[in-house]
Amino acid sequence: MDVSANKGVSGGAFVVGVDYGTLSARALVVRVSDGAEAGTAVSEYPHGVIDRELAGAELPPDWALQDPADYTGALAAAVPAAIRDAGIDPGQVIGIATDFTASTCMPVLADSTPLCQLPGLAGRPHAYPKLWKHHAAQPHADRINAVAHERSEKWINRYGGKISSEWQFAKALQLLEEDFELYQRADRWIEAADWIIWQLCATETRNACTAGYKGIFQDGHYPSRDFLAALDPRFAGFADDKLAHPISPLGARAGRLTRAAAALTGLPAGIAVAVGNVDAHVTVPAAGPVAAGKMVAIMGTSTCHVMNGAELAEVPGMCGVVDGGIVAGLWGYEAGQSGVGDIFAWFTRNGIPGELAEEARRRGVSLPELLDEQAAAAPPGAHGLIALDWEGGNRSVLVDGRLSGAIVGLTLATTAPEIYRALLESTAFGTRMIIDTFGASGVPVTELVVVGGLIKSAPLMQIYADVTRRPLSVIGSGQGPALGSAIHAAVAAGAYPDVPAAAAAMGRIDRDLYRPDPARADVYDELYAEYVQLHDYFGRGANQVMHRLRAIRDRVRKAGTPPAASEAPAREAGA
Amino acid sequence: MDVSANKGVSGGAFVVGVDYGTLSARALVVRVSDGAEAGTAVSEYPHGVIDRELAGAELPPDWALQDPADYTGALAAAVPAAIRDAGIDPGQVIGIATDFTASTCMPVLADSTPLCQLPGLAGRPHAYPKLWKHHAAQPHADRINAVAHERSEKWINRYGGKISSEWQFAKALQLLEEDFELYQRADRWIEAADWIIWQLCATETRNACTAGYKGIFQDGHYPSRDFLAALDPRFAGFADDKLAHPISPLGARAGRLTRAAAALTGLPAGIAVAVGNVDAHVTVPAAGPVAAGKMVAIMGTSTCHVMNGAELAEVPGMCGVVDGGIVAGLWGYEAGQSGVGDIFAWFTRNGIPGELAEEARRRGVSLPELLDEQAAAAPPGAHGLIALDWEGGNRSVLVDGRLSGAIVGLTLATTAPEIYRALLESTAFGTRMIIDTFGASGVPVTELVVVGGLIKSAPLMQIYADVTRRPLSVIGSGQGPALGSAIHAAVAAGAYPDVPAAAAAMGRIDRDLYRPDPARADVYDELYAEYVQLHDYFGRGANQVMHRLRAIRDRVRKAGTPPAASEAPAREAGA
Repeated sequence: MDVSANKGVSGGAFVVGVDYGTLSARALVVRVSDGAEAGTAVSEYPHGVIDRELAGAELPPDWALQDPADYTGALAAAVPAAIRDAGIDPGQVIGIATDFTASTCMPVLADSTPLCQLPGLAGRPHAYPKLWKHHAAQPHADRINAVAHERSEKWINRYGGKISSEWQFAKALQLLEEDFELYQRADRWIEAADWIIWQLCATETRNACTAGYKGIFQDGHYPSRDFLAALDPRFAGFADDKLAHPISPLGARAGRLTRAAAALTGLPAGIAVAVGNVDAHVTVPAAGPVAAGKMVAIMGTSTCHVMNGAELAEVPGMCGVVDGGIVAGLWGYEAGQSGVGDIFAWFTRNGIPGELAEEARRRGVSLPELLDEQAAAAPPGAHGLIALDWEGGNRSVLVDGRLSGAIVGLTLATTAPEIYRALLESTAFGTRMIIDTFGASGVPVTELVVVGGLIKSAPLMQIYADVTRRPLSVIGSGQGPALGSAIHAAVAAGAYPDVPAAAAAMGRIDRDLYRPDPARADVYDELYAEYVQLHDYFGRGANQVMHRLRAIRDRVRKAGTPPAASEAPAREAGA
Repeated sequence: MDVSANKGVSGGAFVVGVDYGTLSARALVVRVSDGAEAGTAVSEYPHGVIDRELAGAELPPDWALQDPADYTGALAAAVPAAIRDAGIDPGQVIGIATDFTASTCMPVLADSTPLCQLPGLAGRPHAYPKLWKHHAAQPHADRINAVAHERSEKWINRYGGKISSEWQFAKALQLLEEDFELYQRADRWIEAADWIIWQLCATETRNACTAGYKGIFQDGHYPSRDFLAALDPRFAGFADDKLAHPISPLGARAGRLTRAAAALTGLPAGIAVAVGNVDAHVTVPAAGPVAAGKMVAIMGTSTCHVMNGAELAEVPGMCGVVDGGIVAGLWGYEAGQSGVGDIFAWFTRNGIPGELAEEARRRGVSLPELLDEQAAAAPPGAHGLIALDWEGGNRSVLVDGRLSGAIVGLTLATTAPEIYRALLESTAFGTRMIIDTFGASGVPVTELVVVGGLIKSAPLMQIYADVTRRPLSVIGSGQGPALGSAIHAAVAAGAYPDVPAAAAAMGRIDRDLYRPDPARADVYDELYAEYVQLHDYFGRGANQVMHRLRAIRDRVRKAGTPPAASEAPAREAGA
């Protein structure tokens, strides 16, 4: 159901959901009674991702910053535009909620002022928000993990045994070690997801989702002073001094829209502002009724699998399990595949012969569309290939970024579309591995729902249904995260007693849109058995060739040896 | 040293070598005293490869026939043209020799008339020569192998445990079972290599090379009547009736040029005609001095490794070992890689993005040249990849056509030229595996010489030198097989006492043209260790995933299941 179909939706109460992505924010105006999408608008961030230079100085590799002025600017631009697009009276809006990329975190003063906005600090990289994909804190994450395992910290197993360099502690430790003066000036270290709420309602909050998944908040507390001191004595007070704050459940009201924020957004002052949330997790209620065992796979460049469970279990290789991390009252589980759409895009860049590209041009279709079409034309198993979906490493269930991709079964008759098909299937096998691992750990997946950019490929969706032997439900909105935020806004405004009730009324799902075909699923069972054997051989230590190849690669690239061409003598005449 | 450099070579005695390839025959005029190449000419076969239809009727899959009139026609066309090109008097020519593709074998009458030239038989496929790449006799080869192992036939281990569907017995058994009438009418079953000699000197001969490598002639006899009867009672007398004939050593004189053949070729009647030979094996003396332990790798679409050894040894996975199979008095060993240049060509067809193809066009270089250049630009190991070179199956040392290719270590940063480089390296690892296996079996390789189309890629040659840690010598002639034939003609004419003496004078080699670089070789040692581990894992039974994938593929392609596209429901609007 796209927005244009809802033009004319104008009676009753509305809420606004704002989805903060990596390059832009989208505001969506949604009717409270049934979730009908009335209008939408997008605002690009003027500074985008700051990853090359800041104030004229080059940034080191793997840095990725943002400018918080872009976040408030997006409110001023996108929200009024979405209201105009919906054609409603702003007075009909009863609440607003947001979701954000995460962990995108920043140092601020006690009054919420970002350090980068203080006089004299505009040129200091560490004064800015570090975007989720800032990967320069890997050494700090490595140390956090090593010390956590040394000390047998209980929480580490809630994160598949590994804290990511993308998360709050790694990035804060980098700040401390690289710019201690700024570390000291920061009264708070806060997720952008919470900071934007602070701007809307002038109330500091910390949401359960980012605190749990990105802030190592488990069983009522952050990592201990002792643990933090073991990382760096100066870091001992980090959680107490800069993080500690009561945790707010998702869907709760953070406060009421201030006059200043009302002026910025054009919305009525005093309406409900929901606590912050994360783009992936907020999507779960957007896909209809919330229930334990309903896995939502957000499929884009990577895939994030989120699911509620009634009980706490430690599932090997998950990204995190957090009490109330998705919906208050349930344990929220998260797992993921580091590369999915990224793998398909990589192959399209590297593996497509000229004739195919030409055919796509001639027929006016995109290369992925043409490949989808060709991939779908043959029955499962006809290409004789098995691929491992680790071109971007393995997030779940092996939690090993040093793994890499593999393709087995190539012959001189193998074609590019066949390899592409095998890559599509490899990601479906990866998802089945995650589902099976959850099931084997006592957290059975009873329903599978897909959302995100990849749902538009029908052949891919059919492969997922066949490989998992499950009917595949598809979210009924093209704006999953923003709709999810709107649902939280409705709950914060008191229109529904809780998120599940709001999700049942406002979420939308095309149930069982793709059904597994038994004959195809039988072939995929055979292929999946091969996938599992290769998965375990390469991924569980039997042959750590992928680690060694990466180590050789990194060593050689650093040291180098002379290339061959310079040494080859000129071909001379025979004698 | 190319031919044009030798224009003006006109004094003294000459010989003619004729190399019969798959699509054409090349005649080369060579000076006896020093092997100088004076002139050459090529004649295309008018009928080429007959693999689609014959006399208006469609041929079954995997058939490949030729017309023997093309063979004699080539003599009439290419030999006089080569003499003209050399600018010599035909009277200076003292001998002629030929080499042929093998096993290319045919049914003929006792007077050498091919059955396909008999009245009424022009439309009978089995009346024609079956070209080496006729692969329709695989079921017959399978049965030969099964029965040989059941009966523990001693000769089967001289062929790596497996007789090829390309060889004489499989093709003859197919003739018997599919057209028994023609089988009965055939007085002889003869290699084209021997048949063409019969046309030149009116004398039937059987050369040691094809008899040994393609005809299972070992220790003085063919497979026994009992064995043949076990295949089919009607086949019991096959060897006795249709093959048996004294075996002629290579370089021997088969006879003298008849008046008819002299009229055809323009050469003097009565000059020496050498016994037949095979294109790969005949090349060994063309690469200079003949010695035990000198391995000659003929590198083209596939690679054939031939080497003389002083002793008989059973090397695991070789294609064959034959007494006097390459040079009389030594044991001739043959091993091979089923796909080499074929793999590179396959990748070029399937793995090259548009921009690279465009750059090649813009710069006026071929894609392989551009890939070579880009592949050479990085040090070994920098791509982080390992590939198995089995896209065409594995001929040596695993002797398993059901294996397939694999690539391990792919990341989202991997580029097409990096994969190409890994494929180049994989074939070098395959050659090192063969060399190491010979060494471990008591047949040490002491010198490595390369010939064939792939020697023009300097980066590839450097990779081979580095991977094998051996200096690489390169043949000094662009016409290796024809020069090899000419050398045999000189011996048959009595100009040299034997082939080694003629090879020392007339062969040519650029010794140690590529030398291993120790630093690069060290990295390749590490990568080769990874290759060996994957080679053994996939190739020696630990995980027979490649066999299973192929079986699934073949089953699915035969039975089929409906493709996905037809089942995927239309994407509907959400509710």
